[in-house]
Amino acid sequence: MIRIGIAGYGNIGRGVEAAVTNAPDMEIAAVFTRRDPASVSTVTNAKVMTYDDMDSMKDDVDVMIICAGSATDLPWMSPEIAGKFNIVDSFDNHTKIPEHFKNVDEAAKAAGTAGVISCGWDPGYFSISRLYAEAALPEGASYTFWGRGVSQGHSDAVRRIEGVADARQYTVPVEEALDRVRAGEHPEFTKREMHLREVYVVAEEGADKAKIEEAIKTMPDYFEPYDTTVHFISQEEMAADHMGLPHGGKVLRSGKTGLEGEFNNTVEFGLNLDSNPYFTGSILTAAARAIYRISEEGKTGAFTMFDIPPAYLYAGSHDDLLEHML
Amino acid sequence: MIRIGIAGYGNIGRGVEAAVTNAPDMEIAAVFTRRDPASVSTVTNAKVMTYDDMDSMKDDVDVMIICAGSATDLPWMSPEIAGKFNIVDSFDNHTKIPEHFKNVDEAAKAAGTAGVISCGWDPGYFSISRLYAEAALPEGASYTFWGRGVSQGHSDAVRRIEGVADARQYTVPVEEALDRVRAGEHPEFTKREMHLREVYVVAEEGADKAKIEEAIKTMPDYFEPYDTTVHFISQEEMAADHMGLPHGGKVLRSGKTGLEGEFNNTVEFGLNLDSNPYFTGSILTAAARAIYRISEEGKTGAFTMFDIPPAYLYAGSHDDLLEHML
Repeated sequence: MIRIGIAGYGNIGRGVEAAVTNAPDMEIAAVFTRRDPASVSTVTNAKVMTYDDMDSMKDDVDVMIICAGSATDLPWMSPEIAGKFNIVDSFDNHTKIPEHFKNVDEAAKAAGTAGVISCGWDPGYFSISRLYAEAALPEGASYTFWGRGVSQGHSDAVRRIEGVADARQYTVPVEEALDRVRAGEHPEFTKREMHLREVYVVAEEGADKAKIEEAIKTMPDYFEPYDTTVHFISQEEMAADHMGLPHGGKVLRSGKTGLEGEFNNTVEFGLNLDSNPYFTGSILTAAARAIYRISEEGKTGAFTMFDIPPAYLYAGSHDDLLEHML
Repeated sequence: MIRIGIAGYGNIGRGVEAAVTNAPDMEIAAVFTRRDPASVSTVTNAKVMTYDDMDSMKDDVDVMIICAGSATDLPWMSPEIAGKFNIVDSFDNHTKIPEHFKNVDEAAKAAGTAGVISCGWDPGYFSISRLYAEAALPEGASYTFWGRGVSQGHSDAVRRIEGVADARQYTVPVEEALDRVRAGEHPEFTKREMHLREVYVVAEEGADKAKIEEAIKTMPDYFEPYDTTVHFISQEEMAADHMGLPHGGKVLRSGKTGLEGEFNNTVEFGLNLDSNPYFTGSILTAAARAIYRISEEGKTGAFTMFDIPPAYLYAGSHDDLLEHML
C-alpha cells in the first residue's frame, strides 16, 4: 500500500481523502493541518496531526499530497515539504510555474525525493490535452474554454461589493465560439466572445440592487471584458441551488495535416464535473501513485504531468493495459 | 535532425512523409518498399529503396516507421525490423497486442533497439484517453464511438457483393447514445444502439439493386447487427463526394467521485479528421520522436503510448512546455 499524507484539509483535501480511501493500492497515513488538530475532524476518521509534526512521519508517509493555495502557500510549502517527502501539488499560477518547478526541483534533488507539480485538470489534464493535440497537429491553433462552472475568485470578488450578502459566479463558454472552432476556423477571440459570466447575488436587506449590478458589470478584469448577467435571489434559493462546486471545460485544437496543410482536423477534450475539488483530488491521487513509482525507480527532482508516462497513473498492471485498454 | 525511414508507402506512408517533412527536427532518409522502387514515386521525391536493402541504411536511419497492415505484415515485419532499427508501428489487432508486444520486446532487447507499437488514434490517442479518464475516475464506465467516417473493411465487404461496382461505408455514432453517456448514465448498449451504418453503392449496369441492398443489410457481423441505410449513386457522384477518407470518433467516460460516489463526472475526447491516414501518420511521426529520445537514453525493448511521457512527443523544449502549455 502506498501511504499518503494529506497536507491541508479543505475541499481538495477532502477530495483526496475520498479518492485515496477508494483506491485499491493506497491508504491515508495522516492529515496535516496548520489549524488546531483537535478542531479538524476528517470524513474517514483519518488521523489529524499538526503541520509541525510532519517530520515525525518521515518513515510513515510515501507521498505527501499538498492541498493548499497557489497564491501564498504552495510557493514555500512545496519546496519545504519536498525537502522531506515525495510530493504532489496543484500549483496553478501559470506565469510562476517555471520558478516553482525550479524551486521544487532543487529541494527534491538535494533531498533525494521526487515531486510532481501543477496536477489537477487545469493545469493538468487540460495541459496534457493541449500537448497531445499539438504533437499530432503542430500546425494549428488551440483554445481553452472553461465552464459551465463556479469560479471562486469571481464569486469572492462579488462578495466584496457593498450590499452583497452572498454570491456565486458561473463561467459559461459561448456555444457559437465552440462551434466556430469545431468547424475548423482559427478565430482570434476577444474574452467576450469566448465566455459569459452569470452571477447569482443575495443582497443585504435594503441594499441598492441597481448599484450592485452596476458595480459587478463594470468591475475591471473580472467582469467588464465579458457579457455578464446578474440574478438577485434569496438566501434560500442560494442554499438550495448554488451550494455545489460544479465545473468543467473544453480544450480544442484545430489543425492541418498534409504536405500543404490540405486536411482539416479538430481535437476536443471536455470535462463536466459535479464537483471540481473532488475531481481535482482524484487526479492528485493518481499523480501520487505515479510519483511513488518514479521515486521507487530512484529518480529525483521535479516533474510535471508532461513527464509522467500515462501508465504510471493507473492502479492496474501493464499486462492489464495491453489486454484491455490499448 | 532525426532521420526517419518509412517502411511501406500507402496512404499512411504518405501521411508520415508529409508530417516528417513539416517537422522542424526530422528528415526522411528513405522510403522502403516491397514493390519495384522504380514504380514508386514519392510526393516529396524522397529516395525509394527496396525492402531488402534496408540493412545498408543501418547507419542512416534513426527510426523506422512501419506503415503496413496489421493482419499479415506487422506481425513479422515489426519484430524483424526491430532487430535492426528503432521502430514505430500502428498494430491495431486488439486481441493480439500482448503477443505482438512480446515479440517486438524480445527482438528489440536482443538488438539494443527500442520500438513503440500500436500508435495512431485507436489504438493510440483513444487508448491514452481511456487511461487518463479511468485513472481519474476508477469507478465508472467507458465508451468508444467511431465516426462519422469511412470504414475500409466495411467498404471492401460491400464491394465483394455481386453487382456492386464500387462502395463506400460510413460508420456513424448514434447521437442519442452519446447524449445518454454525457448525461451520466452507464448504459449497456447493443451494437445497434451505438452506431449506424451508411452505405453508398455504385451498382453495375443492370444489377438487381433490391438484391444488393438485401445482401448488405443481412450480412452477418458487418451489417446485420446495425441499422443500415443504402444509397445507390452514380460513379460520378462517388468520385465527387466520397473519395476522401474522413474519420473520427469519441471516447467518453462517465464516473463517480466522492467517498460514496456522490458526484457524477463525464470526460470526453473527440476527433474529427478530414483524413484518417494523414492524422495517423502525424501521430506515428510524433511517436518516432519519442522513441528516438527513449533510445538515446539507452532504453531498449517494446513500448506503447502508455509508457511514453507526453513531453517526448513534442518538438519543443521542456522550458517551452512549462512556460506556454502547462
